[in-house]
Amino acid sequence: MGSMCKINAAMSIWTRLSLFVLASSLCLCLCRAEDSAMENIVTEKKAEESHRQDSADLLVFILLLTLTILTIWLFKHRRFRFLHETGLAMIYGLLVGVVLRYAIHVPSDMSNVTLSCNVNASPATLLVNVSGKFYEYTLKGEISANEVNDIQDNEMLRKVTFDPEVFFNILLPPIIFHAGYSLKRRHFFRNLGSILAYAFVGTVVSCFIIGLVMYGCVTLMKQIGHLGGDFFFTDCLFFGAIVSATDPVTVLAIFNELHVDADLYALLFGESVLNDAVAVVLSSSIVAYQPEGDNTHTFEAMAMLKSFGIFLGVFSGSFALGVATGVVTALVTKFTKLRDFPLLETALFFLMSWSTFLLAEACGFTGVVAVLFCGMTQAHYTFNNLSPESQNRTKQLFELLNFLAENFIFSYMGLTLFTFHNHVFNPIFIVGAFLAVFLGRAGNIYPLSFLLNLGRRNKIGSNFQHMMMFAGLRGAMTFALSIRDTATYARQMMFSTTLLVVFFTVWICGGGTTQMLSCQKIRVGVDTDVENSIGPDGVERRSTKQESAWLFRIWYNFDHNYLKPILTHSGPPLTATLPACCGPLARCLTSPQAYENEGQLKDSDSDLILNDGDITLTYGDITVSTDATGAHTSGTPVGGVVVNSDEALDRELAFGDHELVIRGTRLVLPMDDSEPPLSLDSHRHRHKNETMS
Amino acid sequence: MGSMCKINAAMSIWTRLSLFVLASSLCLCLCRAEDSAMENIVTEKKAEESHRQDSADLLVFILLLTLTILTIWLFKHRRFRFLHETGLAMIYGLLVGVVLRYAIHVPSDMSNVTLSCNVNASPATLLVNVSGKFYEYTLKGEISANEVNDIQDNEMLRKVTFDPEVFFNILLPPIIFHAGYSLKRRHFFRNLGSILAYAFVGTVVSCFIIGLVMYGCVTLMKQIGHLGGDFFFTDCLFFGAIVSATDPVTVLAIFNELHVDADLYALLFGESVLNDAVAVVLSSSIVAYQPEGDNTHTFEAMAMLKSFGIFLGVFSGSFALGVATGVVTALVTKFTKLRDFPLLETALFFLMSWSTFLLAEACGFTGVVAVLFCGMTQAHYTFNNLSPESQNRTKQLFELLNFLAENFIFSYMGLTLFTFHNHVFNPIFIVGAFLAVFLGRAGNIYPLSFLLNLGRRNKIGSNFQHMMMFAGLRGAMTFALSIRDTATYARQMMFSTTLLVVFFTVWICGGGTTQMLSCQKIRVGVDTDVENSIGPDGVERRSTKQESAWLFRIWYNFDHNYLKPILTHSGPPLTATLPACCGPLARCLTSPQAYENEGQLKDSDSDLILNDGDITLTYGDITVSTDATGAHTSGTPVGGVVVNSDEALDRELAFGDHELVIRGTRLVLPMDDSEPPLSLDSHRHRHKNETMS
Repeated sequence: MGSMCKINAAMSIWTRLSLFVLASSLCLCLCRAEDSAMENIVTEKKAEESHRQDSADLLVFILLLTLTILTIWLFKHRRFRFLHETGLAMIYGLLVGVVLRYAIHVPSDMSNVTLSCNVNASPATLLVNVSGKFYEYTLKGEISANEVNDIQDNEMLRKVTFDPEVFFNILLPPIIFHAGYSLKRRHFFRNLGSILAYAFVGTVVSCFIIGLVMYGCVTLMKQIGHLGGDFFFTDCLFFGAIVSATDPVTVLAIFNELHVDADLYALLFGESVLNDAVAVVLSSSIVAYQPEGDNTHTFEAMAMLKSFGIFLGVFSGSFALGVATGVVTALVTKFTKLRDFPLLETALFFLMSWSTFLLAEACGFTGVVAVLFCGMTQAHYTFNNLSPESQNRTKQLFELLNFLAENFIFSYMGLTLFTFHNHVFNPIFIVGAFLAVFLGRAGNIYPLSFLLNLGRRNKIGSNFQHMMMFAGLRGAMTFALSIRDTATYARQMMFSTTLLVVFFTVWICGGGTTQMLSCQKIRVGVDTDVENSIGPDGVERRSTKQESAWLFRIWYNFDHNYLKPILTHSGPPLTATLPACCGPLARCLTSPQAYENEGQLKDSDSDLILNDGDITLTYGDITVSTDATGAHTSGTPVGGVVVNSDEALDRELAFGDHELVIRGTRLVLPMDDSEPPLSLDSHRHRHKNETMS
Repeated sequence: MGSMCKINAAMSIWTRLSLFVLASSLCLCLCRAEDSAMENIVTEKKAEESHRQDSADLLVFILLLTLTILTIWLFKHRRFRFLHETGLAMIYGLLVGVVLRYAIHVPSDMSNVTLSCNVNASPATLLVNVSGKFYEYTLKGEISANEVNDIQDNEMLRKVTFDPEVFFNILLPPIIFHAGYSLKRRHFFRNLGSILAYAFVGTVVSCFIIGLVMYGCVTLMKQIGHLGGDFFFTDCLFFGAIVSATDPVTVLAIFNELHVDADLYALLFGESVLNDAVAVVLSSSIVAYQPEGDNTHTFEAMAMLKSFGIFLGVFSGSFALGVATGVVTALVTKFTKLRDFPLLETALFFLMSWSTFLLAEACGFTGVVAVLFCGMTQAHYTFNNLSPESQNRTKQLFELLNFLAENFIFSYMGLTLFTFHNHVFNPIFIVGAFLAVFLGRAGNIYPLSFLLNLGRRNKIGSNFQHMMMFAGLRGAMTFALSIRDTATYARQMMFSTTLLVVFFTVWICGGGTTQMLSCQKIRVGVDTDVENSIGPDGVERRSTKQESAWLFRIWYNFDHNYLKPILTHSGPPLTATLPACCGPLARCLTSPQAYENEGQLKDSDSDLILNDGDITLTYGDITVSTDATGAHTSGTPVGGVVVNSDEALDRELAFGDHELVIRGTRLVLPMDDSEPPLSLDSHRHRHKNETMS
C-alpha cells in the first residue's frame, strides 16, 4: 500500500467553475472495498450528486433572472422609474445571498476530504493509487494557509460561486460585442477625438490619480496599524485601473428614453465602451510589471517600459484581430449569396464573431478588446451585406445575449456580497476609495474637457461635464476585473471595496440621473435634426464643415472611397477610385451593385450618408427612408452622378443627424403616464409619424 | 516535508472538459523555489498557456463549423443533393481528425506530471502540501492500469476532446427542445397511437433483439478467443438501448423538401423524437440494474423490476417536470402583459425552458426528456400567448441553437474517429452489430405495423414500412449515449462500433433516401389538403370521424375545452365549461379574449382548429389565414356561436390538413434546376400563391 498520507481538506480561495466538470468522490468508509463494482457505483453516485448540485446552483441563477425579468415588467407596468434593471438584479442577488448565507445550512459530507499528502511539487495532474486503482486529480488552485481548516459551513457557498474566468470567457464577450455592434457610429465618429481622449488619456489619468490617492490612504492605514497585509503601489495602480472602467448602462438607458442630446450620449457611451477595453489591458500591463530582483514592487524604468509596451502590443493586437475578423466576415458575406439563407448567414456571423474572441485569447491578446472592435467592424461593414432577415436575427440574438449576461453579472454581484468568503471591509480604505474615485473622475473629465474645448467648435458645456462626472457608474467590467484574482489580502480588500463602489454608483448615481438632468438643465426630448441645425446659441448652422475634425474627414474619405467599396456593395466602384495598375484587383473586388449605384448605396444602416431631402433613420429600431415629400425611397443616388466624398460629408453634416441614439436593450420607460409603454412597434409608429409631419 | 511520494502520470480515460477550468501547474524544476512570487508567476503563466490551448481547441471547432456552413451554401448554390449537412459535418470532422492525429505533433511538457502518491482512499478533493503551500486537487476520474504510462503522444489529442457530459448538458438539450418545439402537432396527434407504439414498444423490442443478437455474437467471439475483455448480457442490452435511438434528420429534411406524405413524416419524426427519450431512460435503467451479491451480471427478478420501476419513474418524472414548466410559462405569459416587450418575453421563455433541464437534472431525472416535453408544451400552449415578434424570436433562437449544436456534434463524431485513443475495432463485433441493427429495426417496424394496421383505418402501407425501415438513421443521441462512459473494454468496443453504424446510416441510408423514395413509389410533391380528401384508394373521404382514434378524441376534447382555455386566450370560456362550483376560479382563469371569441380563437398556430372555409397554414414558416374567397381573416369565430368540440373536430378532420410539415432548420433544396432556391421569403410567396389560386 505504500506510505500512508494524511490529506487535510481545505476551502479553496479560487472559486471553481463547477459547471459540467465530472468530479467523482468516494467515501472514506469504502476505501478498503475490494469490490471494484461497488466502488464504481459509489463513484458514479457521487458524481451524480455533484452534477445535481451544479444543476441546482445554476437553477438559483435562472430563478434570479426570471424574477428580475418579471419585476422589470411589473415596474414598467406600474411606471416605476426609480430603479433600473441592473440595480434590480443586484438587489435580488443580495436577497438570495442573504438567504444562502444565513438561512440555508447544507450539511456537507466531510468524510471525503480528510486525507493529506506531502509532496515536493504540485504538478498539473496527480495520480493517486488506491488499492491498485488509479485516480487522476487535477490541480484546482492554491489555498491560503488560514483557510485550510475552514470548510464546514462554506460547502454550499462554494457551490454557488463561479470561476472568475467565466466572466471573461462567457459573460463579458456578448456584452462587449453588443456594445460595439450597436454603436451609433455617426455621433461616435463626430466626437471621435474627444472620445479617444477620454477613453485613453482620461482612463490613464484616472488610474494614476486613484492610485496616488489610494497609496496615500494605504500609507496612512499602515501608519495607524490598520493594514492587515501588504499593499504596494502597484496594487494601488491596479485598483485605479480596474475602477476606472465605467459602465453607465443605467444612465444611457435613461438618456435614451428621454432623448437627451445625442452628443452627450455619444461621448458617454463611446467613452465607456472604449475605457472598458483600456482598463482591461491597462490592468494586465500593471500586473505584468515585473522588475528584476527580489523586490518586485520597486520602480524600474525598464519594467515600466515593458509594461507600456505590453499595453500597446496587446491593445493593438486585439484591435487588429477584431478588425481582421470583421473584415473577413464582411468579405465572406459580400462574395457569397449566403443572404438567401438567413439561418446560415446568422450562424456564420455568430461563429465568426465568437472566433474573434478565441483567436485573440489563443494568441495571448485580450478577447474582450478584440470582440469590441470586431463588433464595430461588423456593424459598419458586414451589417450592410446581410439580408434584412439576418440583420434582425443578429441584432436580436446579441440583444438577448447581452440582456441575459448583463443581468446575470449584476445578480452575481449582489450575491457575492454575502457568498464571497474572503471579504476585507476596511472603513478607511473604503472612504479613501470613494474619495479617490471621485477625484479620479473629476481629474479625467474637467481638465480633458477644457483641453478639448480649445479645439472643438461644438464645445462641451459645463453642464455636460457635470453630467459626465456624475454618470461615471461602475459595473460589469470593474467587477469582473476585481474578482479575477482574489488571492492576496490586497486583492480581497480591493474586491470588497469595488463591490461597494459599484452598488453606490449604480443605485445612487443611476437613480439620481433624472434629477441630475433637470438640475443641470440638460434638454430632454431633443429632436435630433432640429437640434443640429440650430446650435446651442440659437444660430442656425448651415454648414458644419468646419467642425468636423481633420481626423474625421481623413477617415471618412478613406472609408467612403476604399473600405466600403471593398467590403460592402456600396459605390463608388473601385475601378473608378483605384489607380489603373490595380485594375484587375479592382474588378475582382467590386460588386455589381457598386456599378449600379455610382453614388452612395443607400445602406439600411447608412448613418453617414444622405441624399437630397432624404431622412434616413438609421439602424437601431427603424430603417425607414422617406424623402421630403413623405414618399418612400430607397437607394436612389443623387441624379446618378458620382458624389464625391466631400460633398457627401457636407450634405451629411448639414442635414443633421437623424440617428436614433439607442443602445441595445435599454428598456424604454414613458415620460409620463399618458404615454403608453413604448414597444418596438409603437416606437416605430411614433417616429414614423414624427418624420412624416 | 513529511513522506516523499511518487506520482505517476497517466492518461485519463475520462475526457476532460478543459473549457474554462483554471488549471495551474508548476514545473518540477521550480518545486523547490523559495520565491513565492516566482511561483505565482509561473503558475499564472501555465494557467495562461492552458487557457490558450483551450481557446485554440474551441477555435478548431468553430472553423469546422464555419467550413461546414460555407460548404452547405456551396452545395445549395450548385444544387448538389447527395450529401446532407450532417454528413458533411462528419466528413470535415474526419479530415480534421486525420490532420490532428497524424500531421500535428505537439511536444508536451512532461515535467509536470511525474509525481505519484500512494494513499488508501480517493477523496473528492485532495490537498497537497508543497513547501508549505497548499494546493487543492479535484478528482477527475479513474484511469485504467494499461494507460498509466501512455501519455506522451496524446497530450494534443486529449486537448481536443470534451467531457461527454458536455453533450448531455449543453449540446443535446437545444436539439431536443427544438424538436419538441417545432413538432407538427396535427399529424403527430392523428398518429399518436402508432407513434407511441413505435417509440416505446418498438424501442424496447429493438433493444432486446439487438441485445440477443449481440450476445450471440459476443459468445461466438469468446469461443474463438477474439474477445479481449468482459462483455456481459447487460452490456449487450445497453448497446441495444443506445443504438435503438434513431435520428433521421437527413431523411426528414429530404421529406420536407420533396413534400412527402405527411403521415409518413409524422410517424418517422414522432418516433425519432420519442425514442430518443426512451433510449436515454432505458439505457440508464439498464445501467442501474444492480442485483445483490458478487456477480453483478446474473439475472435477478427484483433487480429487473427495480430497473423497470426506474424507467417508469424517471420517464414520468421527466415528463411531468417538462410539462409543468411549460404550463407555468404559459400561465405567466397569459396573465402578464409581457408581450409588449419581446425581449423580456423571449428571455423569459428561454430561461424557463432552460430551467426545465436544470430542474430535472437537479431532481435526478433526465433533463433531455424533460426539455422534450417542455418544448411540446410550449409549442402547444405558450406559443399562442407570445407576441408575433416573440414567436419569431424564439423560433429563430432555437433554430440557430439547434443548427449549431447538431453540426457540432456531427463534426465531433467525425473527429473522434481519429482522436479517441481507446478505440476497439473488432470485425466480428462490427458485422454482428450491423446485422443486429438491421434485425432490430425490422423487428421494430414490421410486426408493429402489422398490429397497428389491424386498428388503423389509414393503413401504413408496405412501402411506408420499407421506407421507415430504411430511414432508421442513427445520430446525435446514439453517439452521446455511447461516448458517455468509455471506461471499460466493452464500452469502448461499443463506442467504436456505434461510430461506424452512425457513419454508415447517415452517409449511405441518408444519401440513398431519394432513390429509396422512388423505388418504393412513395408520392412526392404531395399537396396535403388534396391528399387528405382523397384516400389512397381514390375514394373521397367526406367524414373522417371514424378514423380518429378514441384516444385522440378524448384528448382533443379535454384539450379544447379545458387546457387551452386555462393556459391560453382561446375560448370557450371556462365560465361556460366548468361546473358552477368552480365559478370564481373559472372567472379568474378566463382571459377577456376568451369571452370575445366564444368559438375557437384562431391561434396563429391553430393546427387543430378550423372554421368554415378557412385555410390556416400553421406555424412553421407561414401564419397566413385566408378564407375561401381569398380575403384575409383573423380570429372570426363561426357566427359567434359556441362551437362544441365534436363539431370542431369533425370540421378539422373533414377539411383536411393544411399543415406545412416542416421540421425546424432543414434546408430546402429545389427539386429541379428551374426552381430557385427556396428561401423563407420565396417559400412564403410560393405558398401564398398556391393558396390563393
